[in-house]
Amino acid sequence: MKSAALDVVGIGNAIVDVIAHSDEQFLAAEGFAKGAMTLIDAERAEALYQKIGPAIESSGGSAGNTMAGIASLGGKGGYIGKVRNDLLGDVFRHDITAIGVQFTTPSADHGAGTARCLIMVTSDGQRTMGTFLGACVDLGPEDIDVDLIAAAQVTYLEGYLFDPPRAQEAFRKAAAAAHNAGRKVALSLSDPFCVGRHRDAFRDLVAGNVDILFANEAEICSLYETDDFFRAAHAVRGHVEIAALTRSEHGSIILADNLTHQVAAAPVNRVVDTTGAGDLYAAGFLYGLTQGLPLPTCGAIGSLCAAEIISHVGARPEASLHELVATAGVV
Amino acid sequence: MKSAALDVVGIGNAIVDVIAHSDEQFLAAEGFAKGAMTLIDAERAEALYQKIGPAIESSGGSAGNTMAGIASLGGKGGYIGKVRNDLLGDVFRHDITAIGVQFTTPSADHGAGTARCLIMVTSDGQRTMGTFLGACVDLGPEDIDVDLIAAAQVTYLEGYLFDPPRAQEAFRKAAAAAHNAGRKVALSLSDPFCVGRHRDAFRDLVAGNVDILFANEAEICSLYETDDFFRAAHAVRGHVEIAALTRSEHGSIILADNLTHQVAAAPVNRVVDTTGAGDLYAAGFLYGLTQGLPLPTCGAIGSLCAAEIISHVGARPEASLHELVATAGVV
Repeated sequence: MKSAALDVVGIGNAIVDVIAHSDEQFLAAEGFAKGAMTLIDAERAEALYQKIGPAIESSGGSAGNTMAGIASLGGKGGYIGKVRNDLLGDVFRHDITAIGVQFTTPSADHGAGTARCLIMVTSDGQRTMGTFLGACVDLGPEDIDVDLIAAAQVTYLEGYLFDPPRAQEAFRKAAAAAHNAGRKVALSLSDPFCVGRHRDAFRDLVAGNVDILFANEAEICSLYETDDFFRAAHAVRGHVEIAALTRSEHGSIILADNLTHQVAAAPVNRVVDTTGAGDLYAAGFLYGLTQGLPLPTCGAIGSLCAAEIISHVGARPEASLHELVATAGVV
Repeated sequence: MKSAALDVVGIGNAIVDVIAHSDEQFLAAEGFAKGAMTLIDAERAEALYQKIGPAIESSGGSAGNTMAGIASLGGKGGYIGKVRNDLLGDVFRHDITAIGVQFTTPSADHGAGTARCLIMVTSDGQRTMGTFLGACVDLGPEDIDVDLIAAAQVTYLEGYLFDPPRAQEAFRKAAAAAHNAGRKVALSLSDPFCVGRHRDAFRDLVAGNVDILFANEAEICSLYETDDFFRAAHAVRGHVEIAALTRSEHGSIILADNLTHQVAAAPVNRVVDTTGAGDLYAAGFLYGLTQGLPLPTCGAIGSLCAAEIISHVGARPEASLHELVATAGVV
């Protein structure tokens, strides 16, 4: 196995977030499940935008957020995802490359515009998302750069990528390319409803093609169709080398070999917007792992990164995560 | 004089902010004066965007920020400014109308795109701006809706509006329309270099057409070409009914009749980004004034609004300013 030039390559839906404050009544009236991601079409996205309050625009996408986090930590990363050659596509490309992530997937020059996610943040800091996939539906196996995959210690796949029609094929091609090069494959389950839409495919993948799994309580419970988190945690053990299961303010548990590591959440003054919490936990964890750090340290870095992201509006880091981790003294 | 249907109408450059973290070395290398606003052309804006780090996009523009603040306080407002019918123009229009501000100026359907301001925020929270005026140069006297002006207690003009070529004419038309309707005219000096570019025109306006003047220390000193703030404060007295002079962490002083009111700054946990501090002080002050509150209370509301805006990235309020003021108990 060649030594890796990159730490992590992320593959995901390339999305620009449109973030507005909202309230429970509005979510209910619009039929959104609070805290979850709902797919919407272009028309619904436009109608919803007209109804929401003032917003800020910020590059997003689950794996995109994770890669921005790894770059901010000092890691070397790449990204594969599809934008349109329009203004939001330029914004997405600028933001991820400006922080040093390799992003060479060509932009679509026709078809739907760059994907948008309307994120409605309630006063408790929770976020509820309506996603118009736009140009993301153009991502296919032809976009998987196998040399980029082979150059990275870990290929990281977001579960949301199972929604666009041709991405599962891209997903499996990437996983195979990673394993052929002797690399690891990581998967985030992304969202309990997304798991519900693709449960068989996810179980199949977790049983045979995933080395490192990220999930929160609702997602791992959805995967194994149980209400009992510990039953779900028991079910996943043995299927993957490492499972990092996040539990909001209760921190995370990491299952590996026959061991269970408990990791505390990092303190936060005030939870402003939980968008990106899971993405940034994964960033911290994978950064630690690719640096060869012990699993509890990987989890502690994940907790610190998640705490930074939920302390402000938006899912991309505002502070240098490298400095944050150095100051906290966990490494 | 008819009773006013609106509290304040703002007229300004309609701009979308592109906000990135930066450092002093970069500002020096690019030739920017720290803390100031520099005009740049489309080519320079594009080249600079390629060099800055990851950014968020947020509606801005000095008077636009002020009107968003007044709306968040519960005031009734209108806005006049020029965007292009493009994506950023749609974003600007959405954000200002979503909060309840009347914005009926037609979008330009040809010519330069919607204006952008590249805001570079240093670790001390200070912001340095490079503005591409874009579609703002199309604003002319034909865009001044005299019925809207006549309907508002105060017409608020941002000094930056002196930069695009035909806006001074629009400016004077608006001021005349306000006074013809028995209304007040307020002016913000915006930026010391902007004052330097148009000093004679500003002095002329302040001497004859402005009732309420907003300026910070550097701006009022630039207007009267002195290094001595108290000399500048002395010079402005008598020219305007009310001068509200802001002094960052030292609060503000309000000059009216022969009285001087000292107003403290409101406490801030951590200064994250000073963009919009002056705009939101003006919002709080004008809201108080149009509600008929005493001048020291107007200043105290201004201080609270400025404190909210500098505690996060971006120049539009994230919290409800109405609730903030109610909680603080200043009214």
